[in-house]
Amino acid sequence: MPPPDASIDALIAERDQTLTKPPGSLGRLERLTAWMGRWQGRARPTLDHVRIIVFAGNHGVVAQGVTPWPASVTAQMVANFEAGGAAINQIARIGQAELRVVPLMDLRPTADFTHAPAMTEAAFLDAVTTGMNAVGEETDLLCLGEMGIGNTTAASAVAAGLFGGHGAQWAGRGTGLDAAGVVHKGNVIDRALARHEAVLEDPLLVARMLGGYELAAIMGAVLAARWRGIPVVLDGFVCTAAAAPLARLRADGLGHTVLSHCSAESGHVVLARALGLSPLLDFGLRLGEASGAALVIPLLRSAIACHNGMATFAQARVSGRA
Amino acid sequence: MPPPDASIDALIAERDQTLTKPPGSLGRLERLTAWMGRWQGRARPTLDHVRIIVFAGNHGVVAQGVTPWPASVTAQMVANFEAGGAAINQIARIGQAELRVVPLMDLRPTADFTHAPAMTEAAFLDAVTTGMNAVGEETDLLCLGEMGIGNTTAASAVAAGLFGGHGAQWAGRGTGLDAAGVVHKGNVIDRALARHEAVLEDPLLVARMLGGYELAAIMGAVLAARWRGIPVVLDGFVCTAAAAPLARLRADGLGHTVLSHCSAESGHVVLARALGLSPLLDFGLRLGEASGAALVIPLLRSAIACHNGMATFAQARVSGRA
Repeated sequence: MPPPDASIDALIAERDQTLTKPPGSLGRLERLTAWMGRWQGRARPTLDHVRIIVFAGNHGVVAQGVTPWPASVTAQMVANFEAGGAAINQIARIGQAELRVVPLMDLRPTADFTHAPAMTEAAFLDAVTTGMNAVGEETDLLCLGEMGIGNTTAASAVAAGLFGGHGAQWAGRGTGLDAAGVVHKGNVIDRALARHEAVLEDPLLVARMLGGYELAAIMGAVLAARWRGIPVVLDGFVCTAAAAPLARLRADGLGHTVLSHCSAESGHVVLARALGLSPLLDFGLRLGEASGAALVIPLLRSAIACHNGMATFAQARVSGRA
Repeated sequence: MPPPDASIDALIAERDQTLTKPPGSLGRLERLTAWMGRWQGRARPTLDHVRIIVFAGNHGVVAQGVTPWPASVTAQMVANFEAGGAAINQIARIGQAELRVVPLMDLRPTADFTHAPAMTEAAFLDAVTTGMNAVGEETDLLCLGEMGIGNTTAASAVAAGLFGGHGAQWAGRGTGLDAAGVVHKGNVIDRALARHEAVLEDPLLVARMLGGYELAAIMGAVLAARWRGIPVVLDGFVCTAAAAPLARLRADGLGHTVLSHCSAESGHVVLARALGLSPLLDFGLRLGEASGAALVIPLLRSAIACHNGMATFAQARVSGRA
């Protein structure tokens, strides 16, 4: 995993000091500009080509009754994305971003991971590769998200596998479970953790045994973005859990990512803290489909518009401090 | 102050339940849509005409050494706004909003409020009226902000006057004071509070005695927006303090406003809590000039784009819960 271009920070800081504002007064916007510049390797970062990818997959674990929605909704929502009717279509339009929808394995489900590995090695690598190949060459920023009925159960299992803790500590309401449903979901995750206990030390095996195709694809996309110098915006709980194995493989494995928001899904705040990721928004979103990631695109556009477009004190003939 | 159109909430909730997402899954975006709809009186809120107004004024209290910047910077920054070189110009462009800059009283300073009322009654009413008149008839959303060297001292004095507490509890670093400077600023505020102790029970007298022209104009604009059914986005500490007298006059006086962000200026979090306002962003901004208010425009655009543009379950043939 290549490091950022550390020489960019000084160039950005130098220009920032000349702009017509008190130093530091744009707070996190300044840090976001430096982050984009450092990973793009550009002192004037650009956002001409922003790509959103929604990976979609189905999950064998739905047989355990972990969601009130039928698995057929995954394919129906993929059709909805393609027809422009979903939330992500509207938010992508506001963010002036290109939206790609990538269904994995023709939406065939993974195996039920309470009984077997969710994916074979070959299928897992195929999904990772599909994720890698979905990242464009010309992309300036990548926003990642997912759709998959049952995938908060997979994400919770992956998070528990990587960071420890019982199912009850990671299971949340997902798309609308009641309290009894959340307890049941926690028990299902505990059975999966017991079934795969032997592999929990290996982050990639955790991803394969307890994850899902769309999660594997997200991990592949995050990895490919790193190689190509593309900063990545992560969406909510499932997306963060999907990327998390890279942070377990290497401490700065998610250095080129930013967390768009803190989800209402209860495990997300715990997972974000474990990864050292500080969310940009706290809007109680729990939709997935990259909706939170896409929502922050204009904030990033504003950050670089200020850095690249503002007048300097000299240009505007504004006095400095007395 | 007219109330919101309460009939809109049911219409928005009814449509929301039909959209292709789990109910409630867009969290605060859903509440923002309902807020805009309720105050606009429209079941399908619109953001076709978004206006940002930056009010600028100068402050006699700068004679007390409360800021390291010369007062001439106020006029220089007004010129910078007009030439397109400031942060707000870049952020307004990303938000596709119209930017108006309104200098008050030809940038003549208020009186030094440690010695005298900041404004005469006539000048105060003139500034309030200028603020009212700056609100357009066709505006769908109003973002308010300010520029004025020394105005965090005025805002701190107004906040202390309205909500109690000593100068030290409300004085912050402003555009870059050191620790000794903040202590001095707190003492200056305490002297002002002692000088005007007799009027602190009257929110409008607090605004006139301890505020400033641009603060008075902001209050006028917030008031005029209420009459015209225009939701308002407040910027940082100074803008919030400027609007605060309306909340002291009437409990729901700021019901048609939303707070864009929590500023790095230390008094802002206290003031927001006192007003019951929950900020949308926490980016450590401390620039003013409506930068935080303008930053959230695309978030509001995304909120209503989802509500107005998403397909229903029936249209997209997506199954409901099992």
